[in-house]
Amino acid sequence: MLISGIASIASAQPGCLVFAADAGKLEDALRSAATAIIAGQFAGNVNSTKPILVARNPKLAFARVSRLFSQAEHRQGHHASAQVHPSAVIGARTWVGSNVVVDENARVGEGSSLESNCVIAAGVTVGCDCRIGPNVTIHSGTSLGDRVRVQAGTVLGSAGFGYVPDERGHYHLFPQIGRLIIEDDVEIGANCTIDRGALDATVIRRGAKLDNMVHVGHNVEVGENVVIAAQTGISGSSVIEANAIIGGQVGIADHVRIGAGAILGAQSGVPSNKVVRGNGIVFWGTPARPIKDYLKQLAVLARLSRQKEK
Amino acid sequence: MLISGIASIASAQPGCLVFAADAGKLEDALRSAATAIIAGQFAGNVNSTKPILVARNPKLAFARVSRLFSQAEHRQGHHASAQVHPSAVIGARTWVGSNVVVDENARVGEGSSLESNCVIAAGVTVGCDCRIGPNVTIHSGTSLGDRVRVQAGTVLGSAGFGYVPDERGHYHLFPQIGRLIIEDDVEIGANCTIDRGALDATVIRRGAKLDNMVHVGHNVEVGENVVIAAQTGISGSSVIEANAIIGGQVGIADHVRIGAGAILGAQSGVPSNKVVRGNGIVFWGTPARPIKDYLKQLAVLARLSRQKEK
Amino acid sequence: MLISGIASIASAQPGCLVFAADAGKLEDALRSAATAIIAGQFAGNVNSTKPILVARNPKLAFARVSRLFSQAEHRQGHHASAQVHPSAVIGARTWVGSNVVVDENARVGEGSSLESNCVIAAGVTVGCDCRIGPNVTIHSGTSLGDRVRVQAGTVLGSAGFGYVPDERGHYHLFPQIGRLIIEDDVEIGANCTIDRGALDATVIRRGAKLDNMVHVGHNVEVGENVVIAAQTGISGSSVIEANAIIGGQVGIADHVRIGAGAILGAQSGVPSNKVVRGNGIVFWGTPARPIKDYLKQLAVLARLSRQKEK
Repeated sequence: MLISGIASIASAQPGCLVFAADAGKLEDALRSAATAIIAGQFAGNVNSTKPILVARNPKLAFARVSRLFSQAEHRQGHHASAQVHPSAVIGARTWVGSNVVVDENARVGEGSSLESNCVIAAGVTVGCDCRIGPNVTIHSGTSLGDRVRVQAGTVLGSAGFGYVPDERGHYHLFPQIGRLIIEDDVEIGANCTIDRGALDATVIRRGAKLDNMVHVGHNVEVGENVVIAAQTGISGSSVIEANAIIGGQVGIADHVRIGAGAILGAQSGVPSNKVVRGNGIVFWGTPARPIKDYLKQLAVLARLSRQKEK
Repeated sequence: MLISGIASIASAQPGCLVFAADAGKLEDALRSAATAIIAGQFAGNVNSTKPILVARNPKLAFARVSRLFSQAEHRQGHHASAQVHPSAVIGARTWVGSNVVVDENARVGEGSSLESNCVIAAGVTVGCDCRIGPNVTIHSGTSLGDRVRVQAGTVLGSAGFGYVPDERGHYHLFPQIGRLIIEDDVEIGANCTIDRGALDATVIRRGAKLDNMVHVGHNVEVGENVVIAAQTGISGSSVIEANAIIGGQVGIADHVRIGAGAILGAQSGVPSNKVVRGNGIVFWGTPARPIKDYLKQLAVLARLSRQKEK
Repeated sequence: MLISGIASIASAQPGCLVFAADAGKLEDALRSAATAIIAGQFAGNVNSTKPILVARNPKLAFARVSRLFSQAEHRQGHHASAQVHPSAVIGARTWVGSNVVVDENARVGEGSSLESNCVIAAGVTVGCDCRIGPNVTIHSGTSLGDRVRVQAGTVLGSAGFGYVPDERGHYHLFPQIGRLIIEDDVEIGANCTIDRGALDATVIRRGAKLDNMVHVGHNVEVGENVVIAAQTGISGSSVIEANAIIGGQVGIADHVRIGAGAILGAQSGVPSNKVVRGNGIVFWGTPARPIKDYLKQLAVLARLSRQKEK
C-alpha cells in the first residue's frame, strides 16, 4: 500500500506512516490503522505484517521523512494582486501571494515563497527556498540566507529602542540604521520582533530556532543552533553563544553574554552585563543561578515558613 | 427621550444609558446628564425623574444591553479589492473588507466579518457571526465555530515549536501538520499566536476568552469558559480545564494540567508535567504554590532580612 | 570632504560622521576612517586633522544630527493599490504605500507616511509628520498627535479585556467603545497592542516611548516622557506618571499607580491597586520592592541555603 501521509498513532488512517519512540508505543502502533512504522532498535525482534523501518533515532527519522510530504505542497506563481517593483529580482520557482509587496531592488532567491500580504521592503535580500509567512514585515537593511522560515506577523529589521535624554528629560531617538543578518536555516515563529542594529548589525546565526513572540533587540548576536522558546526577550548588544537553550518568557538584559551550551529555565532573568557560563548547566530564577542552588533556596524558604507556622 | 448609546457616568450626554454598581454610583448617575440608568436592588426606594432599570447584576445587564447598540454597526458587502478564490464559499450578510484574502475551499458562515487585510488560508472554516480583525492570519487546518471574535494581528494555526536534534546538534522540524479547533463563542485578543497541533489538534473550547499577546502552543487544550490575561504563554500539550482563570504574563510549561476552576496569579509559572488542582484556589509565584504559602514565604524572607540588618 | 552619513567607529567609511563618548573612544575615532567626529569637552586639547565638533552631550548631538540624514529619505505619493475612501482627508507631502487602507472620514496630516498594508479605520485621526509602519492596524476611536511613530504590526485601539460572568459562569463582553488618545512625539515599537478605553479613554501622553510587544490595557494613562521596555504589560485603569522608567517584561496589574520618575526593574511585578512612589528609586521583584531591600533578601536567602549545606 502506498504511504500517502504521516500521522500520530492515535489518528492514523490506512496509508499513514507513524513513529514509535519506545516498545510500548510500538505495540500501540502495531494495533493502529497505520500502514508503516518507524521504530528504534527495540523493534528488532517484532513479528508484524506491517513494514517497520528501524532507525537509530526514530523521531528524527520521522521528522526527516515528513519533509518529503510537505515539499510536495510548494506553490509556484505570482498572484496578480502582488505589488512587485520593476527593479526587484525574483528567482525561479517562487510563490508570490496575494497583495504581497516587494519594493525597489529587493531580491528573492529561487524556490522561495512569499505568503499573502507580506511586505518585503526596498533592498531586502531573501535567499533560496525561504518561507515568508502572511502579514510578515521585512524592513530595509535585512538579509536572509537560504532555507529561512519566518512565520506570520513577524517583524524583521524594526528600529531598536535607543534614546538619549536631553536636559529637559525629553528622549531623542539614537539612529537605528544598522543591518539585520539572518543566516541559513534559521526558523522564526509568529509575531516575533527582531530589531536591526543601531549602527552595526544584529545577527542570527545559522540554524538558530526562535519560537513565537520572541523579541531580539538591536546589536544582539544569537549563535548557531541556539533554541529560544516563546515570549523570551533579549535586550540590546547581548550575545547568546552557540547551542545555548533558552526557555520561554526568559528576560536577558543588555550587554549580557550567555555561554555556549548554557541552558536558561523558563521565566529566568539575566541582569545587564552579566556572563552566564556552563555548557549543559541549567540556570533558573531572577537573577539566574544554577538550578541546584535555586531549588535549595526555594526549599530552605519553604522550611522556614513552615517552622514559623508551628 | 430616545436612548441612543451607552456611556460612563463621567462622560454621559443626554440620550445615554449608564449603569450604577452601588448606591454611591447611583447618586453620581442621577446627578449626571445620562437619560437612563441600570442599577441594582439598592435603587428600589430612590425617587427620580430618570428611568431606572433594576437588575440583579447591573453590570451584566449593561453589558448585555450594549450589544444591541454594537450590532447595529455590522457592515455588509464585499470590497472590490478583496481576493476571494472562486472555490471559497462565503455566506450571506458577510463583510469582506479591503485586501482580504480568502483562499481555496475556505468557508465563511453567514453574518461574519473579515476586516481589511486579513488572510484566510485554503480550507479554513469560519462559522457564523464571527468577527475577524484586520491583519489577522488564519492558517490551513483551522476551524472556527460561531460567534468567534479574533482581534487584529493574531495568528491562528501557526506551526508549533517542535524540533529533533541530530548527532551534530542541528535541529530538524518535527512535522507540525495537525489542526486547530476553536469552538463557539471564543474571543481572542490582538497579536496572539495559537499553534496548530503537531500531528493531532490544538483545541480552544467553547466560551474561552484570551486577552492580547497570549501564546498557545501545539496540542494544548484550553477548556470551556477559561479566561487568560495578556502575555501569558502555554507550552505544548498542556491542558487548562474548564473555568480556570489565568492571570497575565503567566508561564505554563509543557504537559501541565491546570485543574478546573483553579486561579493562577499574574507572572506565576508552572513547570513541566506538573498538575495544579483546586477550584477557586489562587496560586502564585514560580514554581506556582497556593498564594497563602507564597505570601508567608515572602513575609518570612522580609523578616529575616530586617533581622540581619540590626 | 562632504559628510554623507553616520556610522559607528568600527564601521566608519570616508564621508562618515561618528561620535566619541569618552577619551578612549576619541582615540579610536581618530584612528578610524571617519571623516568627522562629535566629541565631548575632553576633546578640547586634541590635535587632529579631522574636524571635531565638541558638544556638552556628544551622544545627544549625534542623535540630533542623524535626523538630518533620515529626513532626506521621506517618500511622497500615493500608491495606486492603496484603498483610500473618498471621504478620507489626506494631507500634503504624505506617503500612502501599497495596499494601505484608509477608511471613511479618516484624516491624515501633512507629511505623514502610511507604510504598506497598514489599516487606518473609519474616523481615525493621524497628525502631521507621523510614521505608521507596515501591517499596522489603527482602529476607530483612535487619534494620534503629530510626529507619532508606530512600528510594524502594532495594533492601536483594540477592544479591551473586560468581561462580566453570568450565573452560569459564561463571560459577556463589557462594552469596549471608548477612545485611544496618543499625544505628540509618542513612539511605539513593533507588534504592540494598545486597547481603547472601555467607556472613557486610554491615553498615552506626549513624548512617551514604548519598545516592541508592549501591551497597554483599557483606560490606562501613560504619562509624559515615560519609557517602557519590551514585552511589558499594563492592565486596565493603571496610571504611570510622567518620567517613570519601566523595564522589560514588567507586569503592572489593574488600578495601579506608578509615581512620577519611579524606576521598575526588568520582570518586576506590581499587584492590583498598589501605589509605587519614589522619583529615581529603583524597584525590583514581584511584588516590586525597593531594589536594596530585594537584593538584601536575595543575599539572606543565599546565605541560609549555604549554611544548611554545611
